[in-house]
Amino acid sequence: MPSSDSLTRRLLLKALAAAPAIPALLGASTAQAQSAAPLASWNDGPAKHAILDFVRVTTDRANPHFVLPEERVATFDQDGTLWVEHPMYSQLIYCLDRVPMLVKAKPELANEEPFKTVVTGNLEAIAKLPMPELEKLLAATLTGMSVDEFRAQVTAWIPNAQDKRWKRPYTELTYLPMQEVLTYFRANGYKTYIVTGGGQDFVRVYAAKVYGIPVEQVVGSPGGTSYGYAKDGKPFLTKIPKLLLNDNNAGKPEGIHEMIGRRPSAAFGNSTGDQQMLEYTKAGDGARLSMLVLHDDATREYAYGPAQGLPEAKVGTFTQALYDEAKKNGWFVISMKNDWKRIFAFE
Amino acid sequence: MPSSDSLTRRLLLKALAAAPAIPALLGASTAQAQSAAPLASWNDGPAKHAILDFVRVTTDRANPHFVLPEERVATFDQDGTLWVEHPMYSQLIYCLDRVPMLVKAKPELANEEPFKTVVTGNLEAIAKLPMPELEKLLAATLTGMSVDEFRAQVTAWIPNAQDKRWKRPYTELTYLPMQEVLTYFRANGYKTYIVTGGGQDFVRVYAAKVYGIPVEQVVGSPGGTSYGYAKDGKPFLTKIPKLLLNDNNAGKPEGIHEMIGRRPSAAFGNSTGDQQMLEYTKAGDGARLSMLVLHDDATREYAYGPAQGLPEAKVGTFTQALYDEAKKNGWFVISMKNDWKRIFAFE
Repeated sequence: MPSSDSLTRRLLLKALAAAPAIPALLGASTAQAQSAAPLASWNDGPAKHAILDFVRVTTDRANPHFVLPEERVATFDQDGTLWVEHPMYSQLIYCLDRVPMLVKAKPELANEEPFKTVVTGNLEAIAKLPMPELEKLLAATLTGMSVDEFRAQVTAWIPNAQDKRWKRPYTELTYLPMQEVLTYFRANGYKTYIVTGGGQDFVRVYAAKVYGIPVEQVVGSPGGTSYGYAKDGKPFLTKIPKLLLNDNNAGKPEGIHEMIGRRPSAAFGNSTGDQQMLEYTKAGDGARLSMLVLHDDATREYAYGPAQGLPEAKVGTFTQALYDEAKKNGWFVISMKNDWKRIFAFE
Repeated sequence: MPSSDSLTRRLLLKALAAAPAIPALLGASTAQAQSAAPLASWNDGPAKHAILDFVRVTTDRANPHFVLPEERVATFDQDGTLWVEHPMYSQLIYCLDRVPMLVKAKPELANEEPFKTVVTGNLEAIAKLPMPELEKLLAATLTGMSVDEFRAQVTAWIPNAQDKRWKRPYTELTYLPMQEVLTYFRANGYKTYIVTGGGQDFVRVYAAKVYGIPVEQVVGSPGGTSYGYAKDGKPFLTKIPKLLLNDNNAGKPEGIHEMIGRRPSAAFGNSTGDQQMLEYTKAGDGARLSMLVLHDDATREYAYGPAQGLPEAKVGTFTQALYDEAKKNGWFVISMKNDWKRIFAFE
């Protein structure tokens, strides 16, 4: 689950009220075209070359930067790096979408906050809910059920939930150029991991299907579970409202150490929450690749920063300080506008 | 690090004082002989057949119990299941062995408990140290350094530390029949994981070399880390005295869910601390294999229970209740004495 601190608050307060009603881009085809050439959806430029060069030197036995196959780890933030994070995180939409079902099961909730406000659908009012109420929302929708029930609930939601702008399932709003990066790294012996601030169990439900990443390679903000027995004596795990790790900021390298145990060779992010992961990656010996996706394409996706004079982010802040840090340390900034020929497979 | 609760107390109080001085078995050769036939060091019997049958039905596409390759997970407790745990856990010996170095670096510690007692080498006195002192011992030897320093310290210790009975490095005291099980599972597309109550960072140092298990497949009791910066600005992770998960009892299925995200198809343990992992494994759909190693061979290794009238365990309790549970639920009990032709590769 997302951390119950400023993350949740920010995404609610800043994002909900301002959710834009931008008309869908037209005539997009869902056919996924991926050429045999690697990174076919990337324009020629420093970002594309950085990826190709990095993979080349780390997989060539004759190169001093060669990395043993078993040590090849590449980590990817999810929201804003692999798929769209605006106007708000898909997982939060999931939480809001669950509320009517909760109220149906327990009608007395209709008179209790935060459910009373959430069922009105008034996003501005929802964004104004006080923190303890927001925590109640997360706890009620992400915990209290068995891990199997939760998986079934998310599995049922995923294909039916649609982004309002593109009128497509969230799972189609992954960036084709980043899907190509995942494929290219894996084709070169890299294990690809998601390292997300989002709920680990949530992302695990669809990661294999959407990104080709198995559950054991999804590192997120894990919620606690509690082992117990059903009436028939069968053991099961219940999701409990306890955040084991806030997998953002310093929590990213800490989570990587706990869950993977190796410093990544390459890491991709898009916001200040990814800074420590990218620093940690780049600080390793030999060739290391740290990259940041800059959302500078309001026409094809969104534009937000505030780096480079882009509008203040609603979700996924990319500050000018982070931009300067990237330039200073030899990280690469990926410009959606300039580096990506296509953004979505359905275009 | 091991949990700082009853686990530590038990292993210290019960084990140290009674550490036997049994003469080493003689004339053992270190040459590792492993026949092409699977499980060559196993005698024909129900345990061996259970393993062969399980692997056969779960890897045969035509069988109703077929398991997809990406879902094949087998988990193994370490201490007492993959290697010798008597007279005490190797990691605890490591902690004791570190103390002289700590005192050398900070001579004032020589007058402070628990270091004052530990440096005397008086195991009986060490076993009587109060709990807060024992926690201090773990904190002082397993935390406070960077994860890289810790790895270097354990790496340096491993080849030089010797078991008193066999006069060999602990890493040679792995059970050949269990090494064959690891190899056999992997040859059949299973991912093999260690799921240990021991310190995750500790076991990760040698797991690849000793068991062929990569760091990301070692699930243990993880200690926390804290992200920070060196004077030159380089980021690093410091090990802190915070237990993130006590990977014993209910903590084993909870840790499996957090770190792996799949219910194992097969699980191996040897003590009450493994009961929940074996229950959880066996409660899954389709074919599941849960097995317990019973230490009933005082001549070739150790004999302890108290199941089946064996002497009370110093470390690694296997109760009669656990034995009965195993028989009731279709788990298999592996008798070291009857099921294993050879115990160590050096025999």
